[in-house]
Amino acid sequence: METIRVSRSALEKIGQQALMANGLRQDAAKLAIQILIEADIRGIPSHGLARLPRYLKSIREQGVSVTFNPTILRETPVSIAIDANNAMGTTAANYAMQQVIQKANQNGIGIATVCNSNHFGIAGWYAMQALSSDLIGIAMTNTSALGLPTFGQARRFGSNPIAFAAPANKEHAFVLDMATTAVANGKIEVYARQQKPLPEGWGDDANSHPLTEASQLLATLAMGNGGGLHPLGGKGELFGGHKGYGLAIMVDILCGVLSGNAFGQHIVHTPLKTGNVGHFFAALQVELFRDKAVFKHEMDNLLFELRSTPPCVGEQRVWYAGLKELTAQQEAAKWGVPLEQNIIDSLHSIAQYYHIESELNYRVSTTEQ
Amino acid sequence: METIRVSRSALEKIGQQALMANGLRQDAAKLAIQILIEADIRGIPSHGLARLPRYLKSIREQGVSVTFNPTILRETPVSIAIDANNAMGTTAANYAMQQVIQKANQNGIGIATVCNSNHFGIAGWYAMQALSSDLIGIAMTNTSALGLPTFGQARRFGSNPIAFAAPANKEHAFVLDMATTAVANGKIEVYARQQKPLPEGWGDDANSHPLTEASQLLATLAMGNGGGLHPLGGKGELFGGHKGYGLAIMVDILCGVLSGNAFGQHIVHTPLKTGNVGHFFAALQVELFRDKAVFKHEMDNLLFELRSTPPCVGEQRVWYAGLKELTAQQEAAKWGVPLEQNIIDSLHSIAQYYHIESELNYRVSTTEQ
Repeated sequence: METIRVSRSALEKIGQQALMANGLRQDAAKLAIQILIEADIRGIPSHGLARLPRYLKSIREQGVSVTFNPTILRETPVSIAIDANNAMGTTAANYAMQQVIQKANQNGIGIATVCNSNHFGIAGWYAMQALSSDLIGIAMTNTSALGLPTFGQARRFGSNPIAFAAPANKEHAFVLDMATTAVANGKIEVYARQQKPLPEGWGDDANSHPLTEASQLLATLAMGNGGGLHPLGGKGELFGGHKGYGLAIMVDILCGVLSGNAFGQHIVHTPLKTGNVGHFFAALQVELFRDKAVFKHEMDNLLFELRSTPPCVGEQRVWYAGLKELTAQQEAAKWGVPLEQNIIDSLHSIAQYYHIESELNYRVSTTEQ
Repeated sequence: METIRVSRSALEKIGQQALMANGLRQDAAKLAIQILIEADIRGIPSHGLARLPRYLKSIREQGVSVTFNPTILRETPVSIAIDANNAMGTTAANYAMQQVIQKANQNGIGIATVCNSNHFGIAGWYAMQALSSDLIGIAMTNTSALGLPTFGQARRFGSNPIAFAAPANKEHAFVLDMATTAVANGKIEVYARQQKPLPEGWGDDANSHPLTEASQLLATLAMGNGGGLHPLGGKGELFGGHKGYGLAIMVDILCGVLSGNAFGQHIVHTPLKTGNVGHFFAALQVELFRDKAVFKHEMDNLLFELRSTPPCVGEQRVWYAGLKELTAQQEAAKWGVPLEQNIIDSLHSIAQYYHIESELNYRVSTTEQ
């Protein structure tokens, strides 16, 4: 498929103005667009500008609050429990991550829960905020139910991502950002758009038969609650599907149960209602355990050794988490933000609807994705 | 295969006396045996009494210290960095977990790293120690390198387990204890003993070809550093192998790099030397975020809903992490500790060698495992 690249500033303009036209303050609008673009840049288009129409709709029609008036439920020098009161997920999550970074800088550790929040974009963005203070950063969120428990036939948990970032010195930071399902929903959408058959083992229909047609799997996820996506490790226990299932529930315990949010099967997106979600954030000072400079030097050694692993026959190279995204980021800085044609079309519609002067000049890249 | 069940007290006697004959104090010997038996009871025989000969050998021949003289490298009200000075892993890890529990009870959070330690048994045992104080518990360790990075041909990380325990009220606690490789080494050993073919996708030979014969995979793991086990999610990226790889490295960063221990490819077991490993522990007070009683009640709801999920056709029921182990524990309390014949044989040899009066009366169960 052709990758089309668009200038970042044009995307920021449309996105910000559209969000501000709905009452969002400039800083909140800027933040949301920055996080969405970051996803496109890092190669996670399902969480990129493709989400903008839904963000706009959730404000216009579903009561997501344009102001951020959090309630601090509990607080200690190392922790904070926040009720986002149905604010934009990006605003609430960014606030919570800033709180844990400040607490970690001051007291070594910071942990935050957030309840009554909304879609926050990519978890990795928040974990990475810790890196500039040389902290280890962690971010998680629960999401609407689409995952099948091991041996189960109905959906009971979301794609519940885990992000973990740790700083290095010369090497690029280690940045893990992963759904705990084998694949995230957005990957199915990409296969549907490209009309590619799914590999057997991503998801089942309501009768527990594997689905290899993306549109059918998406239809399954939109109906009833039978059938869905398999956890990381796949169906059954043979390849460790019970581990992915366990990780997804761990995320739900921290983001849902601990925060005071809904969890599991109770988080459901419908055409009329976005499910409220909960988040969990942590930041950790390296100096609690070890000299920071030595830690970063040793991180360099670990990461260099990983990316120097001899590749399998037929493979070019070995990566570590965050490195592929860095390459994509560098390309985007040079050539523009990669977007699919249908996303550009939707941005044109948004610009038109909100009377924003559109400057979406773009170039077509020959890169296959 | 036949399951043979042996009385717990007989196993404790042999194990304790053999460890004490090697100079270990009674409390340390008792602890180590308790943790090994717990693994057999919870259905993780690879980390059970099968390890006792190696524990004895590591003291006799490899300089593992029978005394525990830890150095506290750094300490704050919420953290502690421990150098175990080559003590028994079980003793060092138990000490560290007690420290984080105490810190969490007093200050809300406790986090510990341990370097220069040794095999600590099952990670879940430590995470579960947090439950009696109604804390959330976390335990991890790095292990000798046997895992292949995504697209890589050589071993760069261990089975690096993650354990996470969270209390409930009426329901059994949620206890996740998982290797971040698709399967752990011990599972390959079980297949080898039973001469069962491996499913394609657990491990590769040095030429990156899948190995389906367990003995060949074990031989691969014992030689050179090419070939090994795939991370959770399998080979390549299609089913999320890069996620399992990322989780394994996350564990190595926390247990190896952060603690000041060796990491990655530098941890190697040889017939002459056990690789020193590092651990990471955390405990978290629920009350920092939410009323404890409400949390436990909501945990009941989550866990009940999970185990009430309608099963797939052909499956009996749906579990959650820790529930299957509870059933196994209850059976062991009633009928004795399940052991394979070769483990019983090795215990007889140990009893003979150390002149321990053996009372290994056992019964054969008809249960297939």
